[in-house]
Amino acid sequence: MSPIRIAIVGLGKIAHDQHLPAIAGSPEFELVAAATLAGTLADVPVFASVEAMLDADIAIDAVAMCQPPQVRFDAAVQAIRAGKHVLLEKPPGATLSEVEALTRLSEAAGATLFAAWHSRFAPAVHDARAWLTERRINHVEITWKEDVRRWHPGQQWIWEPGGLGVFDPGINALSIATRILPRHFYLHDGTLDFPANRAAPIAAELNMIGMSGAPVHAVFDWRQTGPQTWDIVVDTDDGTLALTHGGSRLAINGVVRESAPEAEYAALYHHFAALIAKGESDVDRTPLRLVADAFLRCRRRDTDPFDD
Amino acid sequence: MSPIRIAIVGLGKIAHDQHLPAIAGSPEFELVAAATLAGTLADVPVFASVEAMLDADIAIDAVAMCQPPQVRFDAAVQAIRAGKHVLLEKPPGATLSEVEALTRLSEAAGATLFAAWHSRFAPAVHDARAWLTERRINHVEITWKEDVRRWHPGQQWIWEPGGLGVFDPGINALSIATRILPRHFYLHDGTLDFPANRAAPIAAELNMIGMSGAPVHAVFDWRQTGPQTWDIVVDTDDGTLALTHGGSRLAINGVVRESAPEAEYAALYHHFAALIAKGESDVDRTPLRLVADAFLRCRRRDTDPFDD
Repeated sequence: MSPIRIAIVGLGKIAHDQHLPAIAGSPEFELVAAATLAGTLADVPVFASVEAMLDADIAIDAVAMCQPPQVRFDAAVQAIRAGKHVLLEKPPGATLSEVEALTRLSEAAGATLFAAWHSRFAPAVHDARAWLTERRINHVEITWKEDVRRWHPGQQWIWEPGGLGVFDPGINALSIATRILPRHFYLHDGTLDFPANRAAPIAAELNMIGMSGAPVHAVFDWRQTGPQTWDIVVDTDDGTLALTHGGSRLAINGVVRESAPEAEYAALYHHFAALIAKGESDVDRTPLRLVADAFLRCRRRDTDPFDD
Repeated sequence: MSPIRIAIVGLGKIAHDQHLPAIAGSPEFELVAAATLAGTLADVPVFASVEAMLDADIAIDAVAMCQPPQVRFDAAVQAIRAGKHVLLEKPPGATLSEVEALTRLSEAAGATLFAAWHSRFAPAVHDARAWLTERRINHVEITWKEDVRRWHPGQQWIWEPGGLGVFDPGINALSIATRILPRHFYLHDGTLDFPANRAAPIAAELNMIGMSGAPVHAVFDWRQTGPQTWDIVVDTDDGTLALTHGGSRLAINGVVRESAPEAEYAALYHHFAALIAKGESDVDRTPLRLVADAFLRCRRRDTDPFDD
């Protein structure tokens, strides 16, 4: 089968760090074009707008949307209306109602829509889910602490409304938790810490609860220097599961079962190719819904100004 | 058929103003008990907790949840697990994930769950929806301005996280708009005005967009003294529809087509009885999703302190 001809929109940090290498390393895809506000690529034409790219005389099957969520929707609509399969970087939209609109459009167009939660493709997530399926959950502790200056240098959109702030990494934790925990959990309450000079939170604490009554407690913080922490620990009637290092390492009762190098985007693009081949979509809004719940329900606290 | 034996939880303002009169006036329901933190009723036993009420030797078929949304969930879970049909006052929960949890529980229990959007039962909503079905929408203007001191005297919960602030009435407008407009619309951006001494907004402006590109603009304000404004005006290719007075009056191109006294809760309880008879549920989360989107996406502004 000939490779899927794919274009990228938004040549920012995540495109260069992850999408371009994953596409280059995949026999299932061939990069044929890009659209971006600034930047060029060595081997393919780069356009100043999605519209110009779709109007050009280039055969494109699919488009990966890698721009900030606040400006992604209009580009996604254009691509879907042009009959392209669309991959959405996380979060899949700036609002839940936008994602609903894209879902309806892609269904009407008969195109594949993939809301890509990259952390779900971390190497140990699959086995963590399998192990938890049969267990009774007593308590879940999610700790997601990283240094925003290191991972999002100069990205001002992330501090603007719709940019999610610390939920930009935190939603990765939620995407894993909603994947590996066997039962639904809901947000009860919590707190969000907003720097005095920012429109998005720099830290959050969420009190969630599973359908069996088990606490699902999450702490997100963007002010962590030194070692970074991306851990989910699940206490069960049958021992403790620790999924750490962002989902790449799994230990049961302290014994490491799995530890593999990170290769999320290779697996993610393989899944996108499989969806296209099957004519299916994969749009799970659950992680974004929990984040919207947090903004809706949590108490807001003001904290020190933060500059990067 | 003998009437449905119903209990009320939360004897606050909305229970006294609307639920008790609607139940008393309906041949389909018979009030048999209540649970509340404070207050008594003349003719039925009143319990201090939902648990005590459900444990008592009283046959109860259905429970109407009329307490503030922040404390409704646990009571609803108990009632559903006891096999009761449940009516939820609006908003149906403090978070979307809570409503999802209740939906799953009620499905498992085989009980009716009714997320009651009372404004959808305003007398002119049905005909407004029918008239708009075939029309092309150019622009929608929603204006919902009322005096919080008049409608929510001393209700501190409404200013707390999860109490929604001005979205407590605003969600009524959204419940009507999502009912009468023929196509999906999504939230693009907006602003929320928070009094310096409050954890919930006192005013909001929402820029929403329909799937055809039509602007759906909403302004909510809780500081309106004098005449109150609850209007939705829809400009179409075939003239202008004005649904005013909270959905009780309909005019097309300035000619009044319908104007009836408000009787929302009588119609609402009739719908609840019909759902129970058919063994169905009715849980539309769209209005609450738009509110969560607003908290997630809109820019927050600080405004003057407000005391009631």
